[in-house]
Amino acid sequence: MSGEGGPAPETLVVGTGLIGTSLGLALTAAGWTVWLEDANPEVAAAAAAMGAGSVYGPSGDGSGAGPAIGLVIVATPPLALAETVAGCLARFPAATVTDVGSVKGPVLAGLRERGADVTRYVGSHPMAGSHRSGPLGARADLFVDRTWVIAPHDHEDYDRTALIERVAGLCGSRVVLLSAAEHDVAVAQVSHLPQLISSLVAGRLNTVPYQHLSLAGQGIRDVTRIAASDPELWGQIVALNREAVRAELEGVQQDLADLLAGLDNTTAVRRVIARGREGVTGLPGKHGRDHATIWEPVVIEITDAPGTLARIFADATRTGVNVEDVAIEHDQVREVGYLTLSVDGTEPAARLAAAMAAAGWKLRA
Amino acid sequence: MSGEGGPAPETLVVGTGLIGTSLGLALTAAGWTVWLEDANPEVAAAAAAMGAGSVYGPSGDGSGAGPAIGLVIVATPPLALAETVAGCLARFPAATVTDVGSVKGPVLAGLRERGADVTRYVGSHPMAGSHRSGPLGARADLFVDRTWVIAPHDHEDYDRTALIERVAGLCGSRVVLLSAAEHDVAVAQVSHLPQLISSLVAGRLNTVPYQHLSLAGQGIRDVTRIAASDPELWGQIVALNREAVRAELEGVQQDLADLLAGLDNTTAVRRVIARGREGVTGLPGKHGRDHATIWEPVVIEITDAPGTLARIFADATRTGVNVEDVAIEHDQVREVGYLTLSVDGTEPAARLAAAMAAAGWKLRA
Repeated sequence: MSGEGGPAPETLVVGTGLIGTSLGLALTAAGWTVWLEDANPEVAAAAAAMGAGSVYGPSGDGSGAGPAIGLVIVATPPLALAETVAGCLARFPAATVTDVGSVKGPVLAGLRERGADVTRYVGSHPMAGSHRSGPLGARADLFVDRTWVIAPHDHEDYDRTALIERVAGLCGSRVVLLSAAEHDVAVAQVSHLPQLISSLVAGRLNTVPYQHLSLAGQGIRDVTRIAASDPELWGQIVALNREAVRAELEGVQQDLADLLAGLDNTTAVRRVIARGREGVTGLPGKHGRDHATIWEPVVIEITDAPGTLARIFADATRTGVNVEDVAIEHDQVREVGYLTLSVDGTEPAARLAAAMAAAGWKLRA
Repeated sequence: MSGEGGPAPETLVVGTGLIGTSLGLALTAAGWTVWLEDANPEVAAAAAAMGAGSVYGPSGDGSGAGPAIGLVIVATPPLALAETVAGCLARFPAATVTDVGSVKGPVLAGLRERGADVTRYVGSHPMAGSHRSGPLGARADLFVDRTWVIAPHDHEDYDRTALIERVAGLCGSRVVLLSAAEHDVAVAQVSHLPQLISSLVAGRLNTVPYQHLSLAGQGIRDVTRIAASDPELWGQIVALNREAVRAELEGVQQDLADLLAGLDNTTAVRRVIARGREGVTGLPGKHGRDHATIWEPVVIEITDAPGTLARIFADATRTGVNVEDVAIEHDQVREVGYLTLSVDGTEPAARLAAAMAAAGWKLRA
């Protein structure tokens, strides 16, 4: 349970899916000794084959005991976490045990219910992932530059939290300390609520006539982009974070009722739009700017011809104007796309537009 | 009022903002004679200076009458449309009059209330625009490849509708015919509802603590992207399309109540996510594919260094793998970005990833 300067503890990863295996890869790369365990021995073997560590088992010294584990990282599916953490706290009476699930309160509560030794438990949540699952999609750099929340509680000692901060640091993550309850509220606000709202809006498209869909522009696409999500995973997440999610949904329900009640009042409607505009500039923006900037778009018509994007960016680079963001919208009938280069400021955007037009590109409004 | 083959009518554009001036530019480029009028004579003069037509006024022949107008296109702000269209129907007893506003029902109703000659009126809505306003941002190609809705009603004759279809065709747009009521429902469904929902969700961010905002990922950003909209414009749009918007908001209100009522039931929650996933694949996708494909992302870490995007796309082109979509996400602290290249298929994505890694780029999960 040493802090920054001490020797690395022998570490056991329980659950070698995408997250567990990636943690194993990251810690192995940092020189730690990592052991791997999974409900399915073949999955643990696959993780070991990828270089995430060695399969955990009895020591070769004949004692029948395994290696002396100092840290256990539990990375099972969400619903199995409390049970597995409790089991590991019992199996390894000297170890610090952490988990990496996306909802923290239920794990802590589950441990208390089971009378487990929560003084050796530190909940955490590395906010990383990919659309892949299982050990084969794992990467040592999965957690680089990601936010890693650590959720200390009353009954643990600081050295154990410091150990998990050390793990997060080795993985390249940025630590944010929040209580379990605060963490669960935060993810309900910035992740779970948007997901559910996006799904609700997208679900209505099932009853919109095809002719009406032909009027759809980029706005509805943005709002419904994350609706293409995994029902099984989100069923579990909502089940675990139910009360925080319920509070957020009830908040939106109230806001929606207020909007409907005031719909005849143009001033009230304007206020809703203005408030939304204010809220969105509060999202963290680029490189430490506190607020997301609203950039000036330069739109260029492009074809599928090979090398088009390469030539556009070569020409754009020559102008010396910095491109902050990039997006492509595809035309629904003609085989063209519209490439939007976002520029910080009206004047540089005008310069870029003029230069690209001079280079022969077709600018769109 | 001739159809496709006949001589072009002398055309008057009333309201030379972005849309009106762009129409003037497009029709002038097509060889039509276009006259311009605006409540502010300086704005009309600016539009004429851009090449959108000539300022409308008494003929030089001393008769005191203006040119013989065959078509009037009214492009004033939304709330002024019915009054202006009625005025033009009276001023030009031989002309077809159309408007280009984003809500159609109230214009027709306003004309009937005023006892105007609706047999010469054809409502339409070219679905184009840009973040700019006023004549100086106008472009002749503003309407190319855009959807242009024409909303014929019972009391007009087909030749007049055909004339507006001809105008839309000259501007490069694709015509969709919908009744005024259907049009207003359609834009409520695919444009107005997503805008208001996005604004509601974004508005809640004003009360989310800064530390919680640091957990925000791409999902909340997608859902709230269009919240950065103009309160004045949207106040007018909602005021004009109030009942269709109300119906959509009440629909979401019901869906939200159902979700809350079933929140304890994991199967019910999974069904909401699954339904949303289904709905979003109904949005028109690329080049005539009926359904938006869910692509495979290849994520590359990039810096702000000039030429980075150019070199990436040069390397990507060499791989021969087609890039379907592009997006950039900015890191909140380090001066790096994550460029996501979307590829159609796991195998080509793997090939692209391998080739870019071999070329020295840093791939992210």
